Amino acid sequence: LSDRERVLLTPGPLSTSRAVREAMLRDLGSRDVEFLAITARVRERLLALAGAEASHACVPLQGSGTFAVEAAIGTLVPADGQLLVASNGAYGRRMAAIAGRLGRPCSLLELPETSPVDPEAVARALAGPRPPSHLAVVHCETSTGIRNPLEAVAAVAARARVPLLVDAMSTFGALPVDARRTPFTALVASANKCLQGVPGVGFALVERTALAAARGRAPSLALDLFDQHEGFERTGQWRFTPPTHVVAALARALDELEAEGGVAARGRRYAESCRVLVAGMRKLGFETLLPDALQAPIIVTFLAPADPRFVFDAFYDGLRRRGFVIYPGKLSETPSFRIGCIGDVSSSDLERAVAAVAETLGELGVSSPGTS
Amino acid sequence: LSDRERVLLTPGPLSTSRAVREAMLRDLGSRDVEFLAITARVRERLLALAGAEASHACVPLQGSGTFAVEAAIGTLVPADGQLLVASNGAYGRRMAAIAGRLGRPCSLLELPETSPVDPEAVARALAGPRPPSHLAVVHCETSTGIRNPLEAVAAVAARARVPLLVDAMSTFGALPVDARRTPFTALVASANKCLQGVPGVGFALVERTALAAARGRAPSLALDLFDQHEGFERTGQWRFTPPTHVVAALARALDELEAEGGVAARGRRYAESCRVLVAGMRKLGFETLLPDALQAPIIVTFLAPADPRFVFDAFYDGLRRRGFVIYPGKLSETPSFRIGCIGDVSSSDLERAVAAVAETLGELGVSSPGTS
Repeated sequence: LSDRERVLLTPGPLSTSRAVREAMLRDLGSRDVEFLAITARVRERLLALAGAEASHACVPLQGSGTFAVEAAIGTLVPADGQLLVASNGAYGRRMAAIAGRLGRPCSLLELPETSPVDPEAVARALAGPRPPSHLAVVHCETSTGIRNPLEAVAAVAARARVPLLVDAMSTFGALPVDARRTPFTALVASANKCLQGVPGVGFALVERTALAAARGRAPSLALDLFDQHEGFERTGQWRFTPPTHVVAALARALDELEAEGGVAARGRRYAESCRVLVAGMRKLGFETLLPDALQAPIIVTFLAPADPRFVFDAFYDGLRRRGFVIYPGKLSETPSFRIGCIGDVSSSDLERAVAAVAETLGELGVSSPGTS
Repeated sequence: LSDRERVLLTPGPLSTSRAVREAMLRDLGSRDVEFLAITARVRERLLALAGAEASHACVPLQGSGTFAVEAAIGTLVPADGQLLVASNGAYGRRMAAIAGRLGRPCSLLELPETSPVDPEAVARALAGPRPPSHLAVVHCETSTGIRNPLEAVAAVAARARVPLLVDAMSTFGALPVDARRTPFTALVASANKCLQGVPGVGFALVERTALAAARGRAPSLALDLFDQHEGFERTGQWRFTPPTHVVAALARALDELEAEGGVAARGRRYAESCRVLVAGMRKLGFETLLPDALQAPIIVTFLAPADPRFVFDAFYDGLRRRGFVIYPGKLSETPSFRIGCIGDVSSSDLERAVAAVAETLGELGVSSPGTS
């Protein structure tokens, strides 16, 4: 089986459409008019997806999504600021680690991996005697697949007048977010998750007022969103060589998102894929880490069967031979694995994946995957 | 004319082969065995190109080449260090700007844009009462096309026992460098210049001893070469999502470099392209900024004709319509433009480009491009 047909059931890089990949067959000059037009259109459309045209600027950045998260923290949180990260997983902790490296004072409001961030606890933290200057939250913690109540957290932050930074890496394009109803100072995501582009570029949607106040603040030249934005505004160009092929693929992917019916339609497709996956896996005896009410339709964590014949590497390999690439778990304690629902993948792919899981279990001699 | 056929005569992104672009038609899982094998092989081959297998580690990094330059400075120059940049152009000044942002003390040994870095002046600077902790130099200043005497500068640095950081962005893969004869602590380059890959990933070849001493030093999580390297060594994986398609294209590009006959053969092809370009343009009356002895066979700066009918944007557009994308000048003073010799381009492409220049001049009514 060639990788061309293999389905990536991961949190990204994920399976993209043939047309998205074919958009990379052309070499474009990074300062040529055609590429500048592609860049401008991508920036506009990303803003429009979040209803943020009037209030925010879209600042694309080379690199993985984490590069854009670091750039947002470094550009927006001043050296004498204080970042509070409401966290329930690895990506929340990563934001705190970034702040630490950048020398930005930071504290964690940490919850168990299976508990959604609690807006009331956040409200209490923001009302304390020394409130933080900035609040950060992850929309969907890809480490478990849990969906955090972004709207409620944003409302709490707005009431306390604390600027909110959102890591929407694994949700943007599939779960709706509207800056006019869900106020945020910055929202960070990347091309290669729910937007179904290829990896190599991230972006931040940043409130123009916050950006304007951030000149010279970032402790980095490459990861400075103020400078990057100023470059786009002044010349339409990227300051440093952009991944032209990746950006062209993103432009094509945004066309496909529109053709599919936008964020709502894509979210419905993922939700159906997620439903088929979870129902099928439960039929085989698997348990999900999360109750359905907390599950984002992005990636699902399944508990590993207690049967010692279940060895993740062998399980992974059996699925891979059958055409499916899955992900190891990322939990601190419980053995688990993850199967993604996002990308250019349909619910029938997930049905086939469940069948491949059943076959692989048979091959491994794991008869009852129930963990109890 | 579609961009598929347009020839990019720029310092990158440049024209790549169809096969390099077709390597991006597959979606690979970033933690899957196949992609890990591609990553390992790319890392090995980049080291081998510099004869650095025994002494250095190859640390690829997401983003443009500048991201890798910043990562090298942040990871290798400690907060109480002192970086001296021997500079004769925009990319040398950029290294100093990076050090400034990172809070690393830095000074510039600055020369005019048309003078190569002077090893004796560097030697004197390194012998001063308070010598710098690190020296940095750009191999070919893409802002003019000047070739700096890397071997002599490296010898001077080695004698003074000052670690050398080399920005070899626009030369690596075409001008030979051998770590066994030209000692350097770090050499930084990117996929999409003389290696003829696509943009989106850079890399640093770093002395293992220097890397081992750099734990926790980088003032960044994303741009930390120590952590990035440790990730590769521990798991074979990239810490953060890699641009899988871009890396696959680089692997293919390295195959093509080998098939062409390696760095020497590629350097010869570029030198021939450069010779044809310069001879043809001189025949039309153009003057090069640099004498031939200082010119790297990478990109050539031509002085703009004095004739007021020569308007760069119109000239650019005329060439573009004829299938060639060139670059504006980057000189502080003299009006100029640049034409690149690198990429999947032959001397006959350069011949055609010169013919297109002649036609475009006719169209603009510029009869004698001589500047005097």
